[in-house]
Amino acid sequence: MTTERIFFPAIPKIPYSPDAGAPDVLCFKHYNADEVLLGKKMEDWMRFSVCYWHSFCGTGADPFGFPTLHRPWNEGGDMAPEGETLEESNKNLDEITDLALQLQNKTGVKVLWATCNLFAHPRYMNGAATNPDCHVVAFAAAQVKKGLEIAKKLGAENFVFWGGREGFLSVHNTDVAAELKHMANFFKMAVAYKEKIGLKCQFLIEPKPKEPCKHQYDYDAMSVIAFLKHFGLDDHFKLNIEPNHTTLAGHSYEHDIVMASAFGMLGSVDSNTGSPDLGWDTDQFPMDIRNTTMVMKPGGLNFDAKVRRESTDLEDLFIAHIGAMDAFARGLRNAIRIVEEGTMNKMVKERYVTFSSGIGKKVEEGSASLEEMEEFIKQYGEPQVTSGKQEKYESIFNYYL
Amino acid sequence: MTTERIFFPAIPKIPYSPDAGAPDVLCFKHYNADEVLLGKKMEDWMRFSVCYWHSFCGTGADPFGFPTLHRPWNEGGDMAPEGETLEESNKNLDEITDLALQLQNKTGVKVLWATCNLFAHPRYMNGAATNPDCHVVAFAAAQVKKGLEIAKKLGAENFVFWGGREGFLSVHNTDVAAELKHMANFFKMAVAYKEKIGLKCQFLIEPKPKEPCKHQYDYDAMSVIAFLKHFGLDDHFKLNIEPNHTTLAGHSYEHDIVMASAFGMLGSVDSNTGSPDLGWDTDQFPMDIRNTTMVMKPGGLNFDAKVRRESTDLEDLFIAHIGAMDAFARGLRNAIRIVEEGTMNKMVKERYVTFSSGIGKKVEEGSASLEEMEEFIKQYGEPQVTSGKQEKYESIFNYYL
Amino acid sequence: MTTERIFFPAIPKIPYSPDAGAPDVLCFKHYNADEVLLGKKMEDWMRFSVCYWHSFCGTGADPFGFPTLHRPWNEGGDMAPEGETLEESNKNLDEITDLALQLQNKTGVKVLWATCNLFAHPRYMNGAATNPDCHVVAFAAAQVKKGLEIAKKLGAENFVFWGGREGFLSVHNTDVAAELKHMANFFKMAVAYKEKIGLKCQFLIEPKPKEPCKHQYDYDAMSVIAFLKHFGLDDHFKLNIEPNHTTLAGHSYEHDIVMASAFGMLGSVDSNTGSPDLGWDTDQFPMDIRNTTMVMKPGGLNFDAKVRRESTDLEDLFIAHIGAMDAFARGLRNAIRIVEEGTMNKMVKERYVTFSSGIGKKVEEGSASLEEMEEFIKQYGEPQVTSGKQEKYESIFNYYL
Amino acid sequence: MTTERIFFPAIPKIPYSPDAGAPDVLCFKHYNADEVLLGKKMEDWMRFSVCYWHSFCGTGADPFGFPTLHRPWNEGGDMAPEGETLEESNKNLDEITDLALQLQNKTGVKVLWATCNLFAHPRYMNGAATNPDCHVVAFAAAQVKKGLEIAKKLGAENFVFWGGREGFLSVHNTDVAAELKHMANFFKMAVAYKEKIGLKCQFLIEPKPKEPCKHQYDYDAMSVIAFLKHFGLDDHFKLNIEPNHTTLAGHSYEHDIVMASAFGMLGSVDSNTGSPDLGWDTDQFPMDIRNTTMVMKPGGLNFDAKVRRESTDLEDLFIAHIGAMDAFARGLRNAIRIVEEGTMNKMVKERYVTFSSGIGKKVEEGSASLEEMEEFIKQYGEPQVTSGKQEKYESIFNYYL
Repeated sequence: MTTERIFFPAIPKIPYSPDAGAPDVLCFKHYNADEVLLGKKMEDWMRFSVCYWHSFCGTGADPFGFPTLHRPWNEGGDMAPEGETLEESNKNLDEITDLALQLQNKTGVKVLWATCNLFAHPRYMNGAATNPDCHVVAFAAAQVKKGLEIAKKLGAENFVFWGGREGFLSVHNTDVAAELKHMANFFKMAVAYKEKIGLKCQFLIEPKPKEPCKHQYDYDAMSVIAFLKHFGLDDHFKLNIEPNHTTLAGHSYEHDIVMASAFGMLGSVDSNTGSPDLGWDTDQFPMDIRNTTMVMKPGGLNFDAKVRRESTDLEDLFIAHIGAMDAFARGLRNAIRIVEEGTMNKMVKERYVTFSSGIGKKVEEGSASLEEMEEFIKQYGEPQVTSGKQEKYESIFNYYL
Repeated sequence: MTTERIFFPAIPKIPYSPDAGAPDVLCFKHYNADEVLLGKKMEDWMRFSVCYWHSFCGTGADPFGFPTLHRPWNEGGDMAPEGETLEESNKNLDEITDLALQLQNKTGVKVLWATCNLFAHPRYMNGAATNPDCHVVAFAAAQVKKGLEIAKKLGAENFVFWGGREGFLSVHNTDVAAELKHMANFFKMAVAYKEKIGLKCQFLIEPKPKEPCKHQYDYDAMSVIAFLKHFGLDDHFKLNIEPNHTTLAGHSYEHDIVMASAFGMLGSVDSNTGSPDLGWDTDQFPMDIRNTTMVMKPGGLNFDAKVRRESTDLEDLFIAHIGAMDAFARGLRNAIRIVEEGTMNKMVKERYVTFSSGIGKKVEEGSASLEEMEEFIKQYGEPQVTSGKQEKYESIFNYYL
Repeated sequence: MTTERIFFPAIPKIPYSPDAGAPDVLCFKHYNADEVLLGKKMEDWMRFSVCYWHSFCGTGADPFGFPTLHRPWNEGGDMAPEGETLEESNKNLDEITDLALQLQNKTGVKVLWATCNLFAHPRYMNGAATNPDCHVVAFAAAQVKKGLEIAKKLGAENFVFWGGREGFLSVHNTDVAAELKHMANFFKMAVAYKEKIGLKCQFLIEPKPKEPCKHQYDYDAMSVIAFLKHFGLDDHFKLNIEPNHTTLAGHSYEHDIVMASAFGMLGSVDSNTGSPDLGWDTDQFPMDIRNTTMVMKPGGLNFDAKVRRESTDLEDLFIAHIGAMDAFARGLRNAIRIVEEGTMNKMVKERYVTFSSGIGKKVEEGSASLEEMEEFIKQYGEPQVTSGKQEKYESIFNYYL
Repeated sequence: MTTERIFFPAIPKIPYSPDAGAPDVLCFKHYNADEVLLGKKMEDWMRFSVCYWHSFCGTGADPFGFPTLHRPWNEGGDMAPEGETLEESNKNLDEITDLALQLQNKTGVKVLWATCNLFAHPRYMNGAATNPDCHVVAFAAAQVKKGLEIAKKLGAENFVFWGGREGFLSVHNTDVAAELKHMANFFKMAVAYKEKIGLKCQFLIEPKPKEPCKHQYDYDAMSVIAFLKHFGLDDHFKLNIEPNHTTLAGHSYEHDIVMASAFGMLGSVDSNTGSPDLGWDTDQFPMDIRNTTMVMKPGGLNFDAKVRRESTDLEDLFIAHIGAMDAFARGLRNAIRIVEEGTMNKMVKERYVTFSSGIGKKVEEGSASLEEMEEFIKQYGEPQVTSGKQEKYESIFNYYL
């Protein structure tokens, strides 16, 4: 690709070199795109996506520091700057997305998901869909309308809503019930328009508990599921889980992926990580093999991660993506060995074996009653205590890491 | 009451003495049961309930220390000890609840809620309704059956489920989807039996994020709402919110009361508090006037709180209840002044005024479309930025504290 | 003052109006500068300082949003912008501080403390005094040299070091022991230069646990005290405590003020607050009367707080300062009543009474031995269990709120 | 050993079987006691110690559940129960420690450390050395006296003080400065008696931030170091770091080991782990290879860890110890490869290279001045920005896991 030649003259195509030593960080040691595992290519198991805005255009600025990362491709500022009016902004978007479409056709790169930024502009400081001023809600709606049209044009597979300002700073000045209803009606408009224009992509909501708001309505997977079901929107949305957001909500790294999956609502994953000792979104590249093994599920993996602001060399951007793709590749290889050898699955299956017959089967099927259960106890008495064997599971899991 | 004379010879009936000085802690300075506020007696605004098991029988033992509180009424051990068999246990329960019913009739004391302890016995170490062994699930079901019969006998207004062991310690050995389904089917059996025996009380679920489990399915209000709606149980349950559990889930003190209320699911409140700097359930008596003002909603207020294990004097039990009732009385008085003067409500109402007419009204009613919203922006352009005025709200709120 | 007339035409001098109603937020209801309490004027008990850079020039930008606050006095950008060279930067500083000195002389406004920003410029991304590159350390040193000269010129009472980048992002690439030594040597150079130029102000270190770094060496009061004592610097520094930083370190609001005070190291206070449910520095105006009562100590109170980025009205800046000053004034009044009535102090004194005589006095004085202690127990046996009476203290404390 | 034959008939000596498969959890796959790494046997790199009281006698009780673990060797209750008087208690201790000494001589097992339990008995509910009642302080002192005598008798290498109740529940009823002084004087008595009886062991303090107290004076490594240095006790004590306590204090897993080491105060390690999403002490067996690699330092490793209360099989106790020893063995092997290959150390060394000569060397040695530093900048100008390369370090670290 021409672009590569221009911006990254020093970076060759990244090879798969499983035997490379520690210092060689510009090669994959585990990720081998074409290798087939369990009947599927590695690149199909894990459909990596890079995040242009976040990973490539992040400036390294933080609340206490000025930009440290100066990217040559980002020097002209925003690619599609907001105009004086909506019409002008939309025209800018048309222009840049025409170019993007050309490049997509030329390179075969696809769009994993599109989104609208409904949180950075000062007009959204009190929320977009949940703003107390309907004028702002209307602006957000107009922006989403354009976003959906662009998603169609570029063939995006998903459209993500992240409600960073949909929540509150102070419950004193907030009518929570009204705002939740407005947000639901906002999503209903989006669903209606999506259907009207024949856009086929999946709608996703990305939960985050807080930051920038003190409290966000999309706190975690379960909060979003409750909201969607309450307002009858659950057929139209799935979740885009970002593990760094999950840990900020007080859960373990894999929690929201597990829960969204259990409720049939897992859509995609923003693959990044935070530090469990930090209380804000650090969006680091995921490097912990334990975590990458735990979350291994097929689906899109979007690198919504930023190199540290201190990682100022251009090659750091490559090292970070390579390191994280390798971490996922190790996670995938581990998970596949766990599945293939089947030791853990068999142990779990045996653990729940009583639900396969008798009274257990009736519980499973929802046909048992309290009276029958009591009868069972009168007949069989006290159950045996059975070890959960957590340490054994952990030891076996470690074997595969 | 005879009992009082025996156990608390030194404690007189607690008077309302609004002018008492700081050292006098055995009187109410704010709580005046018969005083009418906004057309309702104080004792009807706040229906205080004492917690026999927790507050009166707590021993002061903690994970690092032996019991410090020796209560004369608790010396014989458990009032209704578990027998060798379910039948024997149930017989013990019959005996003690016969006595309780006599005392209820004699004293007029009512039962705010009943519950079953499905977490302390070793058989429940891996869960009750979500135990991997259906034999244990059956035992829990039999226990709930008896619990519902007792709730009917004693005229309990609510029946609370707290799923302290419904969750997991390790995701490795857990089939989350299966356990959630079992829990739903368990609740369905309880609903069926409740209807069968004509029990009129409200079913409540009490969310708690963790402790004793690493993760509990009833993490917070929104998690429980998602679960109930997913399994079609939301018409049969409401929530019993304990603010100490809310803060453990990473929310502000009032959060789950606000959210449960916004979703029409608020049932009752376990009135206690924790320390925001501590990561476990301390169940302290609530003393923070700011919090007691924030959560002021009519409904039951159960004192699920324990004196500190270092508060070994018998009078401490009274001082704690009095102090917390006074804290709530101040909260109620503050809240009523806020409502009566109406300054804050008016400010909030004005903040959302654009939803009363025009395009805003259509959003409110759910009849707007993205196209109409875009049209509005094309016509009216950029919205004005409006101050959220958080500090003004906070200053005014402080005026009433 | 001329300046006031220009920038705040709509804001009159803020009066003390103790009887004003809730909606009137542009007056003090509790703070009365000249009122004498315990022999001292209120304005001397609490020497409020405004924070030009933080409170007056904060733009409202956050990691997810663009600036929302446009201050007319801040439109020309930084008052003393960095030049191309150190010499040029210093010249800019000379110019602006000459003007500041003129205005100080004219208005009588004093400088509570000065500081150097050693964290925002990209050169400091890996630390200032602890940077792995000594060239950066040298730059920081040169900047501090100039800062000390300015502190002398403007008569600053304190000079604060906040080590926002003195710590690490990753322990992998960090030589902790070397960095701590460099930081100590850096401070020693500052002490030497301070003495050389006859600067009389107090040096302060402001602890903060994390953010922007993953870990900062000045984690909390005790960490700084350990560092200072280890390197023999404790005679030259005191602490500037910011309660929002204290809570981020996992402590209660008042903790670091209490500990710094117990170790004789309390210098000054940055009076702000955070939200206990948030894991980053929100720098809110302190409005919680309980907290303002708990921390009431004489000393400087610098308003290192920002209006919310949604509080875009100019008057919000005044409402916030007034509300917080009133919150402190209520705290002071409460604290003084607690001291004057003496109930709590007397209870505490009695609690420790055994240390006034006999074996207790020897423990107090450090002259007892294990053998004597054992003898005491052999003679007197098991101690009595004494109630800590926490709820009684809390009730009494509430009386004064 | 006779004991083994009685209690663990089903458990053979645990072999080293590096090629064993996942299901075989009763063998070491990585730990090979006699294997020499970097000139030292594995068993000497990591001197594992089992924790009789915690790991072998833990009952599985938690604040919400009754005991689940019934150990045959623990059925008679406490081995050395408290008597009616100190004299009687001491007699019980004499008896059991006589037996222990016999068994030590017979088996060659050594005592890594001894301690006194100064927190479980109700008399210590308000603290031991910091109790407001000197009578309690005296009791604690008498107990420590006996503890030191036993430590001498059994040849303990260390004596640990864990101050679980040395702190406060409420700052209202606490004289912090007095309590700190009493604690210091208490330690001074212990030091004096240790010297008097010629006890050679190392004194250790084990930091923990909270639980059971709301706040403990020994919050973390730095808090203890500050305390020790303030009271002139730092020559007599080192730290016993428990990583689960470190994470509860808001730090990363390895933090307190790193800091204690940087200040020359690292004594020993209680090798366990918690869950970063939990706010209390879970004392789990450490299984995370990343962590066991990070903390790899020679010294004692005491397994202060408990099997989960659900791990009720006797073999779980072995599986847990084996799994954790293997996790440490992998950590050691990783660490040694990192050291031997030297890639990371070389990168770190180069990162700080400017401190080896010129102005940097003067900073290192403490002989530079602000004026010299300014001169350096005037001559050399702005420093170059150097990438911290965190992702590169992380990638390389991952190579060794």
